[in-house]
Amino acid sequence: MPHLVILYTPNLDARCDMGALCRQLADTMIAQRDEQGQAVFPVGGTRVLAYPAAHAAIADGGAAGQAAGGSGDYGFVYLNLRMGSGRSSRVHESVGQALTEVAKAFFDPMMGDQAIGVTLQIDEGTEVFGVKHSSLHPLFS
Amino acid sequence: MPHLVILYTPNLDARCDMGALCRQLADTMIAQRDEQGQAVFPVGGTRVLAYPAAHAAIADGGAAGQAAGGSGDYGFVYLNLRMGSGRSSRVHESVGQALTEVAKAFFDPMMGDQAIGVTLQIDEGTEVFGVKHSSLHPLFS
Amino acid sequence: MPHLVILYTPNLDARCDMGALCRQLADTMIAQRDEQGQAVFPVGGTRVLAYPAAHAAIADGGAAGQAAGGSGDYGFVYLNLRMGSGRSSRVHESVGQALTEVAKAFFDPMMGDQAIGVTLQIDEGTEVFGVKHSSLHPLFS
Repeated sequence: MPHLVILYTPNLDARCDMGALCRQLADTMIAQRDEQGQAVFPVGGTRVLAYPAAHAAIADGGAAGQAAGGSGDYGFVYLNLRMGSGRSSRVHESVGQALTEVAKAFFDPMMGDQAIGVTLQIDEGTEVFGVKHSSLHPLFS
Repeated sequence: MPHLVILYTPNLDARCDMGALCRQLADTMIAQRDEQGQAVFPVGGTRVLAYPAAHAAIADGGAAGQAAGGSGDYGFVYLNLRMGSGRSSRVHESVGQALTEVAKAFFDPMMGDQAIGVTLQIDEGTEVFGVKHSSLHPLFS
Repeated sequence: MPHLVILYTPNLDARCDMGALCRQLADTMIAQRDEQGQAVFPVGGTRVLAYPAAHAAIADGGAAGQAAGGSGDYGFVYLNLRMGSGRSSRVHESVGQALTEVAKAFFDPMMGDQAIGVTLQIDEGTEVFGVKHSSLHPLFS
């Protein structure tokens, strides 16, 4: 933990490099610091995974966008970060704002041409069981 | 918010039009009204995304289905709606029932030929951070 | 319910048979027994779905792995089991340990060559609405 999962409409793959967004978000996560200046997330535990949907239906399907002179080919991106519990609300806020800035900088140039909705949410894990097994973490310790 | 994510076994894509189901579910979400007659979900914030699994294992893998004279090629569909917190249980129930009716009407004609399990659950979001950034919502305000 | 969803980096598909892992995990879930010797999970309600990401960014992107003499082509697997609420913590622990053993046996032979992180978490569902509709469950009752 943490991991950030991105669910999105497949029409966005033709308009941007989602792999590059994953990298930018991971770098931003790695750079986060808490109130004591400590890294919020371990490098080896930082993961971003992005999934274009195979099928999607967004809003009214395009009518309002076409009525406004656009294509009606709406886009949607949902970014969900699940992080371990116990962090302060200040850390949640600063992490959320940092990731939001990355997402805005990435999608804003596309938003004029296309109606796109971007939602970012952070959940604290409430798992009743959790285990990590890794040959990745040791590279960073 | 809200969004409805559908996870399903890939064998169902050959038997039905999941994109059409997404549209039906989105239309149903948009049509929902609360006790005061107000729309439960904003049009611009209504999203349905469907994902066939790349790999899956269902139940016993097919033995019981074959023993019953079927193909043993089980199907499974999981529909998960995440909506904002604060709605009444009556709204949860009516939204859930409406979506269930759509899913039943869609899958029932297939269920005689194939053993299919359909599960629908609604979660209230408990996010510790959330932000929306959109050129889509303004089309509907 | 239950269902186990596996999210992973797409580079792992060339190195292992994720479909076989799904089957092993489903068989393990079906074999679980509670304190009274009863099956924890119904056979017809046991589902494992696996999804390789289309895009991913893991840890530092590979630099530490290359510095250590490896490829830097990190792998990541996230296994998330969602089960109904109301089970004892002892059941959560025994189910989690059983699934962990399967995942370790499956990935350990690959972990020497490749830096791979495996995380397994069990969540209890907290849905505000849930319905099941199935021609699959009746095969097992």
